[in-house]
Amino acid sequence: MKKTALIMAGGQGERFWPRSRKALPKQFLSLTEDDKTMIQLTVERILPIVDMEDIYIATNESYKALVKEQLPLLPEENILCEPVGRNTAPCIGLGATCVSAKYEDALMIVLPSDHVIKYTDIFRETLEAACEVAEQGDNLVTMGITPNYPETGYGYIKFYTDQVLGQANLVQEFVEKPDLQTAKAYLDSGDYLWNSGMFVWKVSTILNCMQEFLPDTYAGLMRIKDSLGTNAFTQVLKDEFVQFTSVSIDYGILEKADHIYTLPGKFGWDDVGSWLAVKRLHETDEDDNLLLGNVIAIDSQACIVKGNKRLIAMAGIKDLIVVDEEDAILICHKDSAGQIKDIIKTLKDKEMNQYL
Amino acid sequence: MKKTALIMAGGQGERFWPRSRKALPKQFLSLTEDDKTMIQLTVERILPIVDMEDIYIATNESYKALVKEQLPLLPEENILCEPVGRNTAPCIGLGATCVSAKYEDALMIVLPSDHVIKYTDIFRETLEAACEVAEQGDNLVTMGITPNYPETGYGYIKFYTDQVLGQANLVQEFVEKPDLQTAKAYLDSGDYLWNSGMFVWKVSTILNCMQEFLPDTYAGLMRIKDSLGTNAFTQVLKDEFVQFTSVSIDYGILEKADHIYTLPGKFGWDDVGSWLAVKRLHETDEDDNLLLGNVIAIDSQACIVKGNKRLIAMAGIKDLIVVDEEDAILICHKDSAGQIKDIIKTLKDKEMNQYL
Repeated sequence: MKKTALIMAGGQGERFWPRSRKALPKQFLSLTEDDKTMIQLTVERILPIVDMEDIYIATNESYKALVKEQLPLLPEENILCEPVGRNTAPCIGLGATCVSAKYEDALMIVLPSDHVIKYTDIFRETLEAACEVAEQGDNLVTMGITPNYPETGYGYIKFYTDQVLGQANLVQEFVEKPDLQTAKAYLDSGDYLWNSGMFVWKVSTILNCMQEFLPDTYAGLMRIKDSLGTNAFTQVLKDEFVQFTSVSIDYGILEKADHIYTLPGKFGWDDVGSWLAVKRLHETDEDDNLLLGNVIAIDSQACIVKGNKRLIAMAGIKDLIVVDEEDAILICHKDSAGQIKDIIKTLKDKEMNQYL
Repeated sequence: MKKTALIMAGGQGERFWPRSRKALPKQFLSLTEDDKTMIQLTVERILPIVDMEDIYIATNESYKALVKEQLPLLPEENILCEPVGRNTAPCIGLGATCVSAKYEDALMIVLPSDHVIKYTDIFRETLEAACEVAEQGDNLVTMGITPNYPETGYGYIKFYTDQVLGQANLVQEFVEKPDLQTAKAYLDSGDYLWNSGMFVWKVSTILNCMQEFLPDTYAGLMRIKDSLGTNAFTQVLKDEFVQFTSVSIDYGILEKADHIYTLPGKFGWDDVGSWLAVKRLHETDEDDNLLLGNVIAIDSQACIVKGNKRLIAMAGIKDLIVVDEEDAILICHKDSAGQIKDIIKTLKDKEMNQYL
């Protein structure tokens, strides 16, 4: 069956400020040792499996130029601009609608645009295996990640170890972010995976699910489908999207549907959720520092420093995140990485918009 | 008696890097809330007591242009350039020699160029009182500072409470930097002052002391004096200075001489020894932060931040010194301020001379 892909690239990535900005979020940055940006790597990773003309990018109008610039070979009509953000269910619904207008049916691979995958070959093998499972019946496939530590920041997928289809296991339930003790128990049990936000299904299957579990959204999507290729399209898209309930695909569909399968992904996945993750993705020095750029560190440990042009000289520093940009520098304790959003809120409150 | 002054301005002030540089040391910076630089404030402070034409600046050749720029009304011949640094005794000897060539005798006020004095009126009154004592006999007067906390980084002066001349007390002894317990005892006793490096004496008195305690230096100074106003001066100065023993006026003269008096200075003195001192000289916010420039601080305490143009955004930070300059930024724990010299050493070792 024809394979298509929807790459979700509408996020604003505040957690990488000041490197990421409202006008240049995380998916358009290079945060790994590779020169390519996250979205470029995401596309490159699936190109042996999906033709460029069947790759769709869901984003918003303000990032359309960035997508065109970073993915010059992508057909412009494959850039789907959501008029407003309504979480992943309407986003995926829009992608499925567009694919369904092009092909009678097709497989649809859904991927975030800002995750890191270390072992591309294993990823592609797992993805092919997921496609095989999704092609059968009305299966929904979610690509899980085999956990290697008790992360409390992710949702988990519990699977039946004895109900297997191809390389996949039937999903028993989705569980919310656990506390540390629970996360440890999940890790030890061996029948939980991290929920990565990567999915495979047939377009017909996901649209059927939308019809069943999100009927209002489905009806709106069909009106959008009817307007495709007409002058009315932009206005219809806007009118319908604004009315969509904001809901995630997990909550809106997956937690309610049957026939959900998951595959244990062991391809070095990282969602690069904060500057702390960037440290995981690079080699550190003998003092456990990640020092990128023009940096001198005296008696300093466990720091993450992303330099720019100017010299960064440090002494007696521990556990700091330092990110230097032309117009702004962040200095943040690693336990306070979550407060970067408070910095951004302060900038908004003070109308210091040039830094957003 | 005619009053003259020698202001010592040869220091390189590494402790204020990256604000201070080899080419722009501390005395030529504004580190207080005043726009004027430290050396400008030093001159301004004594102008009601000493004529501009009788103020001498001891520095080295590389700072001559800075002195001229910052003190445009000072006669150029009053800028005394030491060919090499030989500590304070030869520096003061050179100043005394130049004054002795101009006046048969005169009072000589010796001042550092990079200290802060909060209460100028009290300083001038104390200085006038010191001049009165120095004018009598062969007294050497050192201006002490009444301590207000048990500082362990300064030398102390012990005085006889019952041997008084004018507002001064006879000095019993000079003592080295004490440990904390000793410093507390000095503070409690009431008969110790901080040694500030500010002196008053007659030129004839200090030259006589040089002849007695540093005879080789004295002989060299006399050869320099003979060459004053001749074409040979620069060469003679260089030849003699290179051979001078590097010694402080405290060790070379004051610890050996008699007739030393001290006055308790209560004029808000601070030697501005590091960025920590800069915090003492400014108001801090409710979180004990000194935030100068374009700074946003979330959940941060007891920091010293000297911003420049770019935004500095901080979260979860404690006890840090942050100094931002166009080409370099310092991030340093306040207990590691002493390691700024290690940063400078590293820069030298790596031949990163543009940052020195």
